[in-house]
Amino acid sequence: MVTLQSLAKLLDGQLFGNPEVEISGVASIEDATPSQVSFVLEKRYQKLVAKSQAGVLITYEKLDAVPNQIVVKSPRKALAKTIDLFHIKHDNLPGIAKSADIHPTATIHSSATIEGCVVIKKDVKIGEKTLIKAGSVIEEGVIIGQDCEIGSNVTILRNALIGNRVRILSGAVIGEEGFGIHTEKGIHHKIPHLSSVIIEDDVEVGANTCIDRGLLRPTKIARGTKIDNLAQIGHNVQIGEDCIIVAQVGLVGSSQLMDHVTVGGQAGIDSVIIGKNSTVASKSGVTKEVPENTVVSGFPAQPHQQELRERAILKRLIKNATKKREENPHEV
Amino acid sequence: MVTLQSLAKLLDGQLFGNPEVEISGVASIEDATPSQVSFVLEKRYQKLVAKSQAGVLITYEKLDAVPNQIVVKSPRKALAKTIDLFHIKHDNLPGIAKSADIHPTATIHSSATIEGCVVIKKDVKIGEKTLIKAGSVIEEGVIIGQDCEIGSNVTILRNALIGNRVRILSGAVIGEEGFGIHTEKGIHHKIPHLSSVIIEDDVEVGANTCIDRGLLRPTKIARGTKIDNLAQIGHNVQIGEDCIIVAQVGLVGSSQLMDHVTVGGQAGIDSVIIGKNSTVASKSGVTKEVPENTVVSGFPAQPHQQELRERAILKRLIKNATKKREENPHEV
Amino acid sequence: MVTLQSLAKLLDGQLFGNPEVEISGVASIEDATPSQVSFVLEKRYQKLVAKSQAGVLITYEKLDAVPNQIVVKSPRKALAKTIDLFHIKHDNLPGIAKSADIHPTATIHSSATIEGCVVIKKDVKIGEKTLIKAGSVIEEGVIIGQDCEIGSNVTILRNALIGNRVRILSGAVIGEEGFGIHTEKGIHHKIPHLSSVIIEDDVEVGANTCIDRGLLRPTKIARGTKIDNLAQIGHNVQIGEDCIIVAQVGLVGSSQLMDHVTVGGQAGIDSVIIGKNSTVASKSGVTKEVPENTVVSGFPAQPHQQELRERAILKRLIKNATKKREENPHEV
Repeated sequence: MVTLQSLAKLLDGQLFGNPEVEISGVASIEDATPSQVSFVLEKRYQKLVAKSQAGVLITYEKLDAVPNQIVVKSPRKALAKTIDLFHIKHDNLPGIAKSADIHPTATIHSSATIEGCVVIKKDVKIGEKTLIKAGSVIEEGVIIGQDCEIGSNVTILRNALIGNRVRILSGAVIGEEGFGIHTEKGIHHKIPHLSSVIIEDDVEVGANTCIDRGLLRPTKIARGTKIDNLAQIGHNVQIGEDCIIVAQVGLVGSSQLMDHVTVGGQAGIDSVIIGKNSTVASKSGVTKEVPENTVVSGFPAQPHQQELRERAILKRLIKNATKKREENPHEV
Repeated sequence: MVTLQSLAKLLDGQLFGNPEVEISGVASIEDATPSQVSFVLEKRYQKLVAKSQAGVLITYEKLDAVPNQIVVKSPRKALAKTIDLFHIKHDNLPGIAKSADIHPTATIHSSATIEGCVVIKKDVKIGEKTLIKAGSVIEEGVIIGQDCEIGSNVTILRNALIGNRVRILSGAVIGEEGFGIHTEKGIHHKIPHLSSVIIEDDVEVGANTCIDRGLLRPTKIARGTKIDNLAQIGHNVQIGEDCIIVAQVGLVGSSQLMDHVTVGGQAGIDSVIIGKNSTVASKSGVTKEVPENTVVSGFPAQPHQQELRERAILKRLIKNATKKREENPHEV
Repeated sequence: MVTLQSLAKLLDGQLFGNPEVEISGVASIEDATPSQVSFVLEKRYQKLVAKSQAGVLITYEKLDAVPNQIVVKSPRKALAKTIDLFHIKHDNLPGIAKSADIHPTATIHSSATIEGCVVIKKDVKIGEKTLIKAGSVIEEGVIIGQDCEIGSNVTILRNALIGNRVRILSGAVIGEEGFGIHTEKGIHHKIPHLSSVIIEDDVEVGANTCIDRGLLRPTKIARGTKIDNLAQIGHNVQIGEDCIIVAQVGLVGSSQLMDHVTVGGQAGIDSVIIGKNSTVASKSGVTKEVPENTVVSGFPAQPHQQELRERAILKRLIKNATKKREENPHEV
C-alpha cells in the first residue's frame, strides 16, 4: 500500500486531491478500482476519464472533475516506475529440469534456471541467474552472461556471444547461416558462413526474429538496442547502441546502423550505413547512405520533409488535372 | 462411394450427365481419376478441363463437352463440403506422451492428446479432445478450451485464455511481451507488460505468427477470426469477430479492428480503428481511422477508388509529359 | 598450409607477389594475420586494404602497394572455394539422442544423426548422413533424403517429401495448412488442405520461413532453389529450379515461379505466373503475369525500366511545379 503523497513524490509529480488515499496496484483506466492507480498517457485516453473508478489518475495535464490526480511530465515514464513499484517479480527457481538434455561439458551457473526439454550442447556457458525457457536449443560454444532471459523454443547457434541482461523472446533464431550466395553457370551455392553473432548487454530480441551469423566477422548488436518481433537481421550487419528496430523490418546483409538509430515497422534497409540518431520511417526502403540526425521515408527513401513536400505537390498536380479534366472532358 | 445424384443433391447443384456414376474421392483437376470428383473453381481452371479424367467436375457454369458435371453457385463452398464428405478425420489417440514434461498441478482432460517433448507448466488447464502437438510450451496459468489444435513448437505464455475449436499453427508465439518502450536520457527501457492474450472460439492463428500480450488489458482476438502466417499483432490490439488477417500483416500496438474486417498481405496498420466490414488492401499502410464499409489502399492509405483514380491521373500526367518531351526534346 | 602459388592455381587467378608464402586460413580483411588470406570483394572494401595484415588479398583488380595479391574474375567465387579449402567440416556423430522421441515405425538410416528432444512420428524415413537438429518435429509419413540438414525447432508436417542435400534452417515450418477459406453468411471456414509439400534436391529454406501444404496438389519447390528467412510460401505455390527468394517475401497461394526467378526482399506476388529468368525487385507487389527474362519493380509491378522512367518524370513534374509555385506563390 502506497499513499498518493508518496506516489506523487516517487513520480516527481504534482498531486491534486487527498494525499492520504492508499493505492495497492495498477490497472487500465477502464478496469481500475478505487484502490488502483491508472494513467492518461495521451489525449485519446481522456474520453475514458469520466467513467474511470481509479483511485488516482496519473496524467500529462490537469484534468477537470477528477478528484485525485497526479500531473507528471512523462506519464509513460511514470507508468514504468509505477509498474516497477507494484509488479512482483518472481525469482525463477534455480536448477535444471529433468527433461532438459545438457551436454556434460556445459558450464551452467548454480543460480541459473534451465526449463524442460531445453537442449544445451558442448562447451556452452550459462551465467548467474540466467533463465533458459522450455524447448530452447543452445549450440556448441555459445556463451550467455548473467540475468538473461532466453524465451521458449529459441535457437542460438554455435559460438554466439550473449552479454548480460539480454532478453531473447520465444521462437527467435540467433546465428543461422546468412544468405550469401555464389552463382556459377546458373547454379546457386551457399557460401559457408564461418563467423557468429555478438549480442551485447541489455539488448532485447523479439519473438521469431532472425539474426544471421557473419561470413568472416560476427554480426553485432550493440548495447541497449531493442528489436521487435519477426525482424530479419542479415549476415555481417552491425547495429549500434540504443537503436530501436520495430517489427518486420528487414536489414540486408552488411548494413550498418550507428548508435541511436530508429527503424519503423516493415522498413527495409539495403547494405548501407544509417548515421547516428537517424530515423527510418515505417515501410520505407533505404537504398543509399543516410547521414546523421536525419529522418528518411518513402521508397527509395529520401529526407522525410522532402518526401512530404513531394507528396503534397503530387496531390496538388492530381487535383489540378482532375479539375481541368472536369472543365474540358473531351481533351485527351 | 457416392453417386452423382446424391452428390448433386448434397451440393444443391444441377447435374448434367449420368446420375449413377459412383465417386470415391476428391483430387485436383489434373490428377483426378474417373472415380474421383474435381473442381473448376474459376475461369483460369477451364484450360485444364479438356484433359481431365475426373469422373465429374463441379463447376460455376455449364462447360462444353464434359460428360458429367454439376453446376453450383459457389464451387468453393462445394469444395469444402465435398472434402468434408470424403476426408477421413483421424481422431488423435488421447493421452500424454512419455517425453512430455507436465507440471503436477496442470489439469489435462482425459480425452486430450499431449504429444512428445511438450512442456506444460503450473496450473494449466487443457480441455476435452484438445490436441497439443510436439515440442510446444504452455506456460503457467494458460487455459485452453475443448477441440483445439495447438501445432508443433508453439509457445503460449502465461495466463493466456484460449477458447474452443481454436487452432494455433506451428511455431506461433502467443503472449510474448509487447514492444512498449520508455526512453530516458537516450536509454530505452522496456515497460513490463502485465496483461495477457484472449483468443475466443473458432479463431485460427497462422504458423510463426506473433500475438503480443497487453500492457494493462489483454490483447484480444474475437470469435471466428482467421489469421495467416508470419503476422505481427502488437500489444493491446483488439480484433473483432470474423476478421481475416493475411500473411505478414503488421498491426501496431493498440490498433483496433471491428468485426468483419479484412487485411491484405504485408499491410501495416498504425494504432487506429478500422471500422466494421472494412477492407485494407495488400501492402497498404494505414495511418488514420478507417470508417465502416470502406476499402482502403496505398500508403498512406485512402479510399481505394480515390487511390485508383489518382494512380490513373498520375499515369496520364506521366504520359503527357513524356509526349511533350518527345515533341520538344530540348525543353527543360 | 597452402602456398600462394597453389592457391592462385586453385582459384585460376593471377598472382602478384611471393609464390612461396604459406597460408593456413581465411579471415576478414580487418582481422586477417600474415598467415591468412582475405578478400576485396567489391570497391567499397578498398579503403580497408592499406591497414590489412593479410598474407595475401584476393581481389577483382590489381591493387597498388599490396605485396601479395591474387587477381581473379569473381572474388565471390574465389571466396567460396577458399572457404571450402580451409573450412573443416565436422562430421556429425551418427546416432539418436536419448532425449529424442522416435516412433517405432520410423526408419532412420544408421549414419543419420538425431539430436536431443527431436520428435519423429509414424512411418517417417530419414536418409543416409542426414542431420535432424535439436527440438525439431517430423510428422507422420515424412520422407527425408540423404545428406540433409534440418535445423533446430523445425516443424515438418505429415507426408512432406524432402530430397537430398536439402537444408531447412531453424524454426521453419513446412507443410502447415494453407489459408484457403470459404465464407458463408459472414462466417469463415477453413478448407481442409489434403495435400502436402515437395522439396527437391539442393533446396535451402531459411529460418522461420513457412511453406504451406497444397489443397489438392502438393506445393512444390524445385531443385536448387534457395529461400531466405521469414518468407511466406502459400498453398499450391510452384517454384521452379534455381530460384532465389530473399527474406520476408510473400507468395500468395497458387502463384507460380518458373526456373531461375529471383524475388527481392519484402516483395509480394499474387496468384500469378513469373516467367523464366525474371526478377522481381525488392518491396514490389506483382499483381499480374510477368513474362520471361523481365525485371519488374514497383506496386503494382511493371517493367523496371518503365518504373524508373516514370519515377524520373514524376520527379521532374514535381520540380517544375515547385519552381512554378515559387515564381507565382499566389496561384492556386
